[in-house]
Amino acid sequence: MPPTLGQNQYGKAETRVVRVTREGPVHHVRDLNVSVALSGDLAAVHLAGSNAAVLPTDTMKNTVYAFAREHGIASPEAFGERLARHFVDTQPAIHRARVRIAEYAWDRVPTPGEGAHSFVRAGGETRTAQVTCDDTGVRTLGGLTGLTVMNTTDSEFRGFVRDRFTTLPEADDRLLATDVTAVWRYAAAPEDWDATHARVRGRLLGAFAGTYSRSLQQTLFAMGTAVIENVPQIDEIRLSLPNKHHFLVDLEPFGMSNAGPDGAVYIAADRPYGLIEATVLRDGAPSLIPVDLTAP
Amino acid sequence: MPPTLGQNQYGKAETRVVRVTREGPVHHVRDLNVSVALSGDLAAVHLAGSNAAVLPTDTMKNTVYAFAREHGIASPEAFGERLARHFVDTQPAIHRARVRIAEYAWDRVPTPGEGAHSFVRAGGETRTAQVTCDDTGVRTLGGLTGLTVMNTTDSEFRGFVRDRFTTLPEADDRLLATDVTAVWRYAAAPEDWDATHARVRGRLLGAFAGTYSRSLQQTLFAMGTAVIENVPQIDEIRLSLPNKHHFLVDLEPFGMSNAGPDGAVYIAADRPYGLIEATVLRDGAPSLIPVDLTAP
Amino acid sequence: MPPTLGQNQYGKAETRVVRVTREGPVHHVRDLNVSVALSGDLAAVHLAGSNAAVLPTDTMKNTVYAFAREHGIASPEAFGERLARHFVDTQPAIHRARVRIAEYAWDRVPTPGEGAHSFVRAGGETRTAQVTCDDTGVRTLGGLTGLTVMNTTDSEFRGFVRDRFTTLPEADDRLLATDVTAVWRYAAAPEDWDATHARVRGRLLGAFAGTYSRSLQQTLFAMGTAVIENVPQIDEIRLSLPNKHHFLVDLEPFGMSNAGPDGAVYIAADRPYGLIEATVLRDGAPSLIPVDLTAP
Amino acid sequence: MPPTLGQNQYGKAETRVVRVTREGPVHHVRDLNVSVALSGDLAAVHLAGSNAAVLPTDTMKNTVYAFAREHGIASPEAFGERLARHFVDTQPAIHRARVRIAEYAWDRVPTPGEGAHSFVRAGGETRTAQVTCDDTGVRTLGGLTGLTVMNTTDSEFRGFVRDRFTTLPEADDRLLATDVTAVWRYAAAPEDWDATHARVRGRLLGAFAGTYSRSLQQTLFAMGTAVIENVPQIDEIRLSLPNKHHFLVDLEPFGMSNAGPDGAVYIAADRPYGLIEATVLRDGAPSLIPVDLTAP
Repeated sequence: MPPTLGQNQYGKAETRVVRVTREGPVHHVRDLNVSVALSGDLAAVHLAGSNAAVLPTDTMKNTVYAFAREHGIASPEAFGERLARHFVDTQPAIHRARVRIAEYAWDRVPTPGEGAHSFVRAGGETRTAQVTCDDTGVRTLGGLTGLTVMNTTDSEFRGFVRDRFTTLPEADDRLLATDVTAVWRYAAAPEDWDATHARVRGRLLGAFAGTYSRSLQQTLFAMGTAVIENVPQIDEIRLSLPNKHHFLVDLEPFGMSNAGPDGAVYIAADRPYGLIEATVLRDGAPSLIPVDLTAP
Repeated sequence: MPPTLGQNQYGKAETRVVRVTREGPVHHVRDLNVSVALSGDLAAVHLAGSNAAVLPTDTMKNTVYAFAREHGIASPEAFGERLARHFVDTQPAIHRARVRIAEYAWDRVPTPGEGAHSFVRAGGETRTAQVTCDDTGVRTLGGLTGLTVMNTTDSEFRGFVRDRFTTLPEADDRLLATDVTAVWRYAAAPEDWDATHARVRGRLLGAFAGTYSRSLQQTLFAMGTAVIENVPQIDEIRLSLPNKHHFLVDLEPFGMSNAGPDGAVYIAADRPYGLIEATVLRDGAPSLIPVDLTAP
Repeated sequence: MPPTLGQNQYGKAETRVVRVTREGPVHHVRDLNVSVALSGDLAAVHLAGSNAAVLPTDTMKNTVYAFAREHGIASPEAFGERLARHFVDTQPAIHRARVRIAEYAWDRVPTPGEGAHSFVRAGGETRTAQVTCDDTGVRTLGGLTGLTVMNTTDSEFRGFVRDRFTTLPEADDRLLATDVTAVWRYAAAPEDWDATHARVRGRLLGAFAGTYSRSLQQTLFAMGTAVIENVPQIDEIRLSLPNKHHFLVDLEPFGMSNAGPDGAVYIAADRPYGLIEATVLRDGAPSLIPVDLTAP
Repeated sequence: MPPTLGQNQYGKAETRVVRVTREGPVHHVRDLNVSVALSGDLAAVHLAGSNAAVLPTDTMKNTVYAFAREHGIASPEAFGERLARHFVDTQPAIHRARVRIAEYAWDRVPTPGEGAHSFVRAGGETRTAQVTCDDTGVRTLGGLTGLTVMNTTDSEFRGFVRDRFTTLPEADDRLLATDVTAVWRYAAAPEDWDATHARVRGRLLGAFAGTYSRSLQQTLFAMGTAVIENVPQIDEIRLSLPNKHHFLVDLEPFGMSNAGPDGAVYIAADRPYGLIEATVLRDGAPSLIPVDLTAP
């Protein structure tokens, strides 16, 4: 028997679109990276090389640009939904469209006079969105990645399992740092996608800063809980938190102490790093966010 | 009702280990990047910050190094299995261990005399392995990433769907290039992991080079088929192939033609790119490889 | 005749140090990446493998950490000078020390109560400093990299040279974006390194935003001029500005226009990019900043 | 007095060009990344925004593609020279052109039948070239970067300086690994640029592998010497060698030894790293290669 075709999808990845909207001298900017993946009745192209059901990925790119012009970009989530619906609605062979978007934020730089058309990139953080459209409807995930945070106290790590290979001493007061990657699922569409995203971000930051941490897992759960409890449209959130280790330098060989009420010096390590991942759910809600947000 | 904890795992990511084995003056090298993720009865640490069931990720790192010394690294797959079994077997709270490994290859550089201890990195390609151990047993995935290939002819793209946004002309003879990412599932352990990996790689290369391509999907399916049909231990393979576009430069404005029997000049584009993904299965085999190998 | 040894230097690159200073519950953070390069009477180690004059690079790393603890990090420039002087003053064979520092900025995140120990990374921008110490004294360069800015109007590009290979149309109103890399030379030490850095950054942003641009070169010169004219301690500034092209999408094939008072849609391109580099000098000042800040 | 303009240059960076040459069914590939930088009488564009002397960077890109078609790419060095001469010869305001090229290598993949049109990327190593053309003539630099090598023995580090901050123990037998970046200057054009590049690479590899190393500086000098002594057209070579540290793991806490005739286990560290840089010159030759090949 010949091999068979399993799950498959294809699309155009990383279409970079910048939409400028002018209200007289006041300009607004949306800066997105859009990736489209379609699936459906596509056996013929795999098995026989027939492109009769294949919309070119080049067309998907064109559609992103044309829609940005025609409809504007109200938010990544709304733009993604419009695109996803379009492909499913207009392509007979396509039964599922997934649109992933990364948005880069820009802050305003003041300009002289009445103009407002200068901007500065707001940093390494990226807002993410994923919209999937199929027979069952539309599912929307919000998210962010690259939000790097640090607490210089109120973190400990004690009482853990010890085995033959354990050498780690307990830590009463450690530095805790992580790059937050979060993906959350909207059970209902909020009225204002941007405001809701900002609210989630604020809750994540607030919970990270306000939690006395006995483990990064505990902090993670507190962060997820803060979102679920304060944003009613969100039923599920998946967090992936690398433990960006900062080790106390051993200064004893130099006759120095590296502790005390005045602070300390740390090695910011690259690899390896701890990696803590978990989903937090509204009680009774299904778990629908894929587990593997990040590799490894 | 308070939020509940969903799927969760934690571990040490990217432990970089180099194992040198000496047979007199002849040295052998294994160069790995190992990531461990454990899951099990870990509600207490998330909900209450109790680390009583938590083996530190630092211990996982130590275990990687100690095992590399004690048992050697026969192959990424065998080393991953040993590690995964260890954590499930020795940690009462842990019910599932997933070990992901990337291996970097080194070629020998000749040295004068009888020594053989000089090496040069073999390139950007990486061998990958993932071993998951739980109650149901052990599942092993082989793989590779960063295998960049190109055919300068025997590729066309015609007969595709056209809609309002389609401007792409048909191509009779195009350049086809991709970075192969592949993950395959072993239904049975082969006698020699290294030799089997080399055989899969050879079949992927051979099918890419030997297929007259009407679409990258067709090439993908031919590559997967070549593996399934020639490597009996493998039941499933997932391929992710970015279409690294090379556009013919328009030289007409300069009174030049960019076509003809003597060759042509291409723009090697960065973004956006097509992205073709599919699973090829031995007939009747289940599909167990996660769909999202790569983002976006 | 055997070959001879030319210019040489060695050191420890990329020592990552985080210094936390506590004032009761209020914490302060400095997060640096420090690279040391020493040169001097080092022929013996190159020609004969004698390490008698070689301070290990591991010691340089230790010195970075010990000095961060002992003296604190008042600013990258002051910390760099202390390190550079130390190596020249204490190592008889070393006649020149160059210390390069990258600093990553953190903003505060409010915490409940009286504590102030939570931070969020301020973005992709990096502050840089380079201090060189030799017989002739100390030379200090400030700088920044990764400051990404954009004007959505007030930029044109017209009246340029046309040759056989020129196809570019003139642009009356284009989007202008760049990643600013700047290095400036202090002729005198300012009283407050941090405040001076902030002032330079402000002047660069202000000049970018406030200049009607006929070319990126003109904008560059305006940026450099704004710094020289407003910061008396700085005699020279070198700017490297990639022209991050944003192309207007051609929407005519879809029966759409991509121009008008309401805005437009742009392709954010990756490569190739224009690269504009120039030094701006206080009248009569020597040019001492190396030309090649960036590759390529 | 207003500020003055110092050294300046502008150009198009990172034009990605692939040239396919067909000899019947046998195809040849050249894959380059080309960066052009021009300087000359360019004060007017900086000071007044006049583009009357400015050839657009877009035209430079077009020229790269047109020349690749018209003249082919015999080698990076020859192609760079043709481009550099062109800009200086045809643009009255331009007095100096610098062309930097990175070349990516491809190996052949066998294809069935008589065709030879399938290729696989040869790895992470990149060949580099820089050609500068001005009134004084043409200067050509060859080079390579990303050549990663390792010796698992025949390396020690002893007899070094110790100060208050030195804790490093002496090493009798260590693992030595580096990423070679080399730039060499041709005093005369060789008959065959490709063959000469291959010869330099072979000498660098051979000297690295064949030198018993008392320090990485000694190895560096041996590598440079091997090139100067064996390639008569080359008068100068600059090497930049990061010391990619591989630390012996301390396994004593686990009751294990990590030494012995059977090999050892190493931690492959990321940062910090030693960085050794030096120029080796033919006796009496001038030093003309810029010192700072790499940052930091």
